[in-house]
Amino acid sequence: MEFSSSLLDNAVSEFAKLPGIGKKTALRLVLHLLKQDPAAVEAFGEAVLKMRREIKFCQRCFNVADTDICSICANKMRKQELICVVENIRDVIAIESTQQFNGVYHVLGGIISPLDGIGPDQLTIEPLIQRIAKENTEELIFALNPNIQGDTTIYYIQKKLRSSPVKITTIARGIAFGGELEYADEMTLARSITNRLPVEKYVQH
Amino acid sequence: MEFSSSLLDNAVSEFAKLPGIGKKTALRLVLHLLKQDPAAVEAFGEAVLKMRREIKFCQRCFNVADTDICSICANKMRKQELICVVENIRDVIAIESTQQFNGVYHVLGGIISPLDGIGPDQLTIEPLIQRIAKENTEELIFALNPNIQGDTTIYYIQKKLRSSPVKITTIARGIAFGGELEYADEMTLARSITNRLPVEKYVQH
Repeated sequence: MEFSSSLLDNAVSEFAKLPGIGKKTALRLVLHLLKQDPAAVEAFGEAVLKMRREIKFCQRCFNVADTDICSICANKMRKQELICVVENIRDVIAIESTQQFNGVYHVLGGIISPLDGIGPDQLTIEPLIQRIAKENTEELIFALNPNIQGDTTIYYIQKKLRSSPVKITTIARGIAFGGELEYADEMTLARSITNRLPVEKYVQH
Repeated sequence: MEFSSSLLDNAVSEFAKLPGIGKKTALRLVLHLLKQDPAAVEAFGEAVLKMRREIKFCQRCFNVADTDICSICANKMRKQELICVVENIRDVIAIESTQQFNGVYHVLGGIISPLDGIGPDQLTIEPLIQRIAKENTEELIFALNPNIQGDTTIYYIQKKLRSSPVKITTIARGIAFGGELEYADEMTLARSITNRLPVEKYVQH
């Protein structure tokens, strides 16, 4: 596609760099912005620039934050002794939207994956170990994706914490709500049988 | 969705205002930008702001332009006497990408549509009439969408130009290349029969 304006061309190219946005969609978005009030476009551009310039990462849990400590860590109503370990910010948002978790988080910033060249040093594992040693952490819940990398990461951190009295758990793996038994993979089905629950406990949920 | 950062929240809300972008996609895009180099995000934001602040509309054809006259109008290699009338900038881009048209354009900025409250005065019809009176225009090709509004607009402009010697044509309507006869609507099929072409002419194309 060729445009009669390099300003338009630049804006379209920048939008087309975003994941899942092709040239045609980029053009549609830019022409939409062009039709908007200049003030609305200023608000859009400024929000993006301000976000990247000013956003911080919580010094305690590495979640995104406006200040040095994120709003979840700063919330005194939440159980500070219960830490949920997640891979990234998106997982924090997913768990928060369930409104079922009242503890705090620790964002690893990734997962141990030797094939991708990601080792424990690139993640916030050392700060987590130090945090547990310093705080009165009672329980660590791993909410990592159920795959080899997730299990490796759990194993590695668990080994590091062997001498610590902290209780370590992981979120339940099993057949998803609404899922069908016959389509579940063997691994999931096997685990959900091994970790079967007394029906009274199941009904509570 | 709730975020622990209002900066993130703002950026996501702004993205979610774009057409076809929901909250989840907006979050994915913003988190992508957050992972990028600050310079890359600056380039993105600045391209959008600069586009909206500095873009101009060609004083002759109302296409987008970096200067007072767009690059298509300024191109001496193009037939300045052949004007293609289109509804919007997107149509200019679509026709340009065929690389089959060597004339210039006139962007109406919409189409006559009384139901939507759009009359001739909101469009660049008057400047078109004046342009034709001033320039040595030989032919006006209407490339408007084939519907009532398009036909109304063609009829209105044609009436205005009754006393002018300019030749007025419209792009061909017919069965689309790769389309199937049995699925074509009656109107299209009827028109493509009425405006049938000698086979020699068809093969030329």
